[in-house]
Amino acid sequence: MAQRMRRRDQPSPQPGTERTPAIFAGGRYRPLAEGEVSAICEAALDILARIGMGGAPDWLMSALIDAGARQRGDGRITFDKEKTLRAIRRAGKRVSLPGFVEARGIQVGGGRVHLGTGGAAVQVLDGATESFRDSTLADLYGLMRVLDHCPNIHYGVRPVVARDMATPLELDINTAFACLKATGKPIGVSFDQAGHVAPVIDMFDTALGGGERFRRQPFCMAIIVHAVSPLRFAPEGVEIMRAAIARGMPLQICTAAQAGATSPASLAGALAQGLAESLAGLLVVDAIRPGHPCIFAFMPFISDLRTGAMSGGGGESALANAAAAQLLLHLELPSTVSAGMTDSKVADVQAGYEKGYSVALAAQAGADMINLSVGMLGSIMVASPEAMVIDDDMCGAILRGVRGIEVSPGLLDLDAMERVVTGEGHYLGEAQTLQLMKTEFVYPTLADRRSVAEWVDAGRPPLWDQARKRVADILAQAPAHLPKVAEEQIRARFPIRLDKQGVRS
Amino acid sequence: MAQRMRRRDQPSPQPGTERTPAIFAGGRYRPLAEGEVSAICEAALDILARIGMGGAPDWLMSALIDAGARQRGDGRITFDKEKTLRAIRRAGKRVSLPGFVEARGIQVGGGRVHLGTGGAAVQVLDGATESFRDSTLADLYGLMRVLDHCPNIHYGVRPVVARDMATPLELDINTAFACLKATGKPIGVSFDQAGHVAPVIDMFDTALGGGERFRRQPFCMAIIVHAVSPLRFAPEGVEIMRAAIARGMPLQICTAAQAGATSPASLAGALAQGLAESLAGLLVVDAIRPGHPCIFAFMPFISDLRTGAMSGGGGESALANAAAAQLLLHLELPSTVSAGMTDSKVADVQAGYEKGYSVALAAQAGADMINLSVGMLGSIMVASPEAMVIDDDMCGAILRGVRGIEVSPGLLDLDAMERVVTGEGHYLGEAQTLQLMKTEFVYPTLADRRSVAEWVDAGRPPLWDQARKRVADILAQAPAHLPKVAEEQIRARFPIRLDKQGVRS
Repeated sequence: MAQRMRRRDQPSPQPGTERTPAIFAGGRYRPLAEGEVSAICEAALDILARIGMGGAPDWLMSALIDAGARQRGDGRITFDKEKTLRAIRRAGKRVSLPGFVEARGIQVGGGRVHLGTGGAAVQVLDGATESFRDSTLADLYGLMRVLDHCPNIHYGVRPVVARDMATPLELDINTAFACLKATGKPIGVSFDQAGHVAPVIDMFDTALGGGERFRRQPFCMAIIVHAVSPLRFAPEGVEIMRAAIARGMPLQICTAAQAGATSPASLAGALAQGLAESLAGLLVVDAIRPGHPCIFAFMPFISDLRTGAMSGGGGESALANAAAAQLLLHLELPSTVSAGMTDSKVADVQAGYEKGYSVALAAQAGADMINLSVGMLGSIMVASPEAMVIDDDMCGAILRGVRGIEVSPGLLDLDAMERVVTGEGHYLGEAQTLQLMKTEFVYPTLADRRSVAEWVDAGRPPLWDQARKRVADILAQAPAHLPKVAEEQIRARFPIRLDKQGVRS
Repeated sequence: MAQRMRRRDQPSPQPGTERTPAIFAGGRYRPLAEGEVSAICEAALDILARIGMGGAPDWLMSALIDAGARQRGDGRITFDKEKTLRAIRRAGKRVSLPGFVEARGIQVGGGRVHLGTGGAAVQVLDGATESFRDSTLADLYGLMRVLDHCPNIHYGVRPVVARDMATPLELDINTAFACLKATGKPIGVSFDQAGHVAPVIDMFDTALGGGERFRRQPFCMAIIVHAVSPLRFAPEGVEIMRAAIARGMPLQICTAAQAGATSPASLAGALAQGLAESLAGLLVVDAIRPGHPCIFAFMPFISDLRTGAMSGGGGESALANAAAAQLLLHLELPSTVSAGMTDSKVADVQAGYEKGYSVALAAQAGADMINLSVGMLGSIMVASPEAMVIDDDMCGAILRGVRGIEVSPGLLDLDAMERVVTGEGHYLGEAQTLQLMKTEFVYPTLADRRSVAEWVDAGRPPLWDQARKRVADILAQAPAHLPKVAEEQIRARFPIRLDKQGVRS
């Protein structure tokens, strides 16, 4: 019976027809007190006013100086507080990200939580052999196909590098095509160089039916590392920003300094520097095209100072990323933070709890987008489609928490309580119980709720095996959202390496 | 080097000499808005005023009526709002729980988070064979020994039922002795009947050196189910309350209705009824001895309405328990809630994420005590010492999150930032980095932070194997806190079934 009802509650989604995952506003968790928020924001403004940013190429230096910035004797560029505050005021507060399937789009900003992938893993964990190997274009396509079917995941940023591509251009074009072909949800890709933006957007225009249609339905963000910490612009990153802005592409601009290495070891200092770097990115947008859709991926990473290695799974990482979300929510800037970055190499109990607390805290803090929510292992060096469907279940439960508790007179019905207490003695037969069964509770797809005896009788099925079945079921379905004629045009015009079966050709 | 530094940072604790686990205040996560808190509190007061409680034995009925309660025509007893509010005002706001090793005690109340065990599992997961079997007195002793060495766990409520005891009295006496002998941290035990309180406390007095010393150092709570949901007193439970109060024993009184079965299916309704049941317990304390130390274990459980079975791992459970903590914090009543109740049967990724988000949210909500934080599996029907040490590591990371972010001018040092930016370009060599290495960051004991390559080279050691080693190391050490002479006196006077090697005799 459990199986039957589960199917009725959560119908297996069909390609291109899935509902948009539920969206709820966070912000009930405030890791920083009000005074702490102000102190860190003030420090970030001070950093930009006193220390500023290095590494600006000439065109950017001119544009920033035209917008009121100043050059120090050593060539660094600084920004008056007033100018920075003006840029914050006129920043785009909401970024609309349609999907290629337009109805699957999202509105980013204001603390409404969206979960997605992210990262640039270089390995995948093979579901069958549980061995690690270099990630390929086919892996990327498979991961994005799986993401398309995750009911609790809103968007997909390219999670792995297709290491079987021959050139940077082939990589960028094929990464974009694999994401486009795999999912109708909003996507995000990065670029090796600014010159690759135009061909990729040309391809997207073709996919949408020609003309400059991507400008009207910009279903793909440019994921750009605009800063090299501490406090320098990434020259190629800002070039890519300029190219993407020119083509109407929404930006997700990233700073991910590691506390103790490329940012201060104190979480407060790391947050102040990271916020300054995010605001520096805003000042670039503001100097080129004020109000251009830009999401601030402010991702305070943590070093394990015993080894210097990045540690994504610890409590400090969860806390700092939640605080980053709070700071951007306070400034009314659309935010992306990172969570779900376990240090475990496989989908084990450590992976579970590190993902559980970090995604829950970022979501409750009201991060507009949470990159890396699903599918990553090994301190974000490894991706796994099986881990993705397992994590997706977790995200459903976490989003249920973000939704909160509805409190209304109808739900605090003392007459019903009196009736139960003086009658049956339980609520099982109450009309409200039946009615709330499907609305008050979320039922997992994979997580096992059987009793010990039932589970042992069933042969102790590992969750991993259930996940493998789910992944296989999804991959057996072909995506249908990209029109065939558009796909043919793309294949005729661009060096597409993914064949029609989703295998590298 | 990682190993060497780990050892220096977190010295392996010696029996009886461990530091008290760190304590931090929660409350930064507020699942309910202010108006929602008021509405639920008002509803709880209304429930007590209109529907009241059934099942009061005659002595309690008389005592409550003497204190101002009224009897309805059907025998239920109701409480005016004013009387309930008076009881809330004069309730003990802080409960002092010393350990048997007094310095390991805790102060419960005000949102300072303490993690502990709890429950009444009837099976254990055998660490070596990974099979499930009935729990025994030796299992209980072993679990509490392990708990004694968990650096992030503050107290230990008996997690398993010793099913190899012959009579209820033998069970209660030996449960209390096994906990006492195993750990110097504050403990909690339950009683089959009120008549068992006196012999157990006599034993505790003996342990402390004779006389009524337990009254001055009450290192053990009475864990009492005082209510049968919906809205009836548990007759034996209130008898045990009376007996424990008479002997100066702190109380932890529990209500754990299942939403949709023994409480309303709406989380709001479940919270209102549960709070009413907790307050009914307070009114019992108030009628017997106002201000007696009492902790309110308000644990809204969730039914999976597809099967009717209790589900501890879902998002609704995490959310409802966090909200329960918030409600009691609002009323300034010392709280216990439940988290860490995974529905998985083994320590897998599902167990991890269900524990991760639920313990994190309860802690961030400011639960004074979180029962079941560590060591439970199978919807709290199974305990495991290996799961306990794994979960303990998780709790360290979660407590790091509760501690929050220190924001001070010294930690927002722009001069240092300027020096780094114009100098080395990284913070690795900064004095503050070295200084903060041990204070700003928590390093796990078991969680694996190695790279994929290092971990594969090491033979992919499963975390479970590391946990087994840690458990074996702990169990190889004998506890030293119970004086030998006291133990001899106890063994002479009580039917102790645990031999000196921790095995059932």
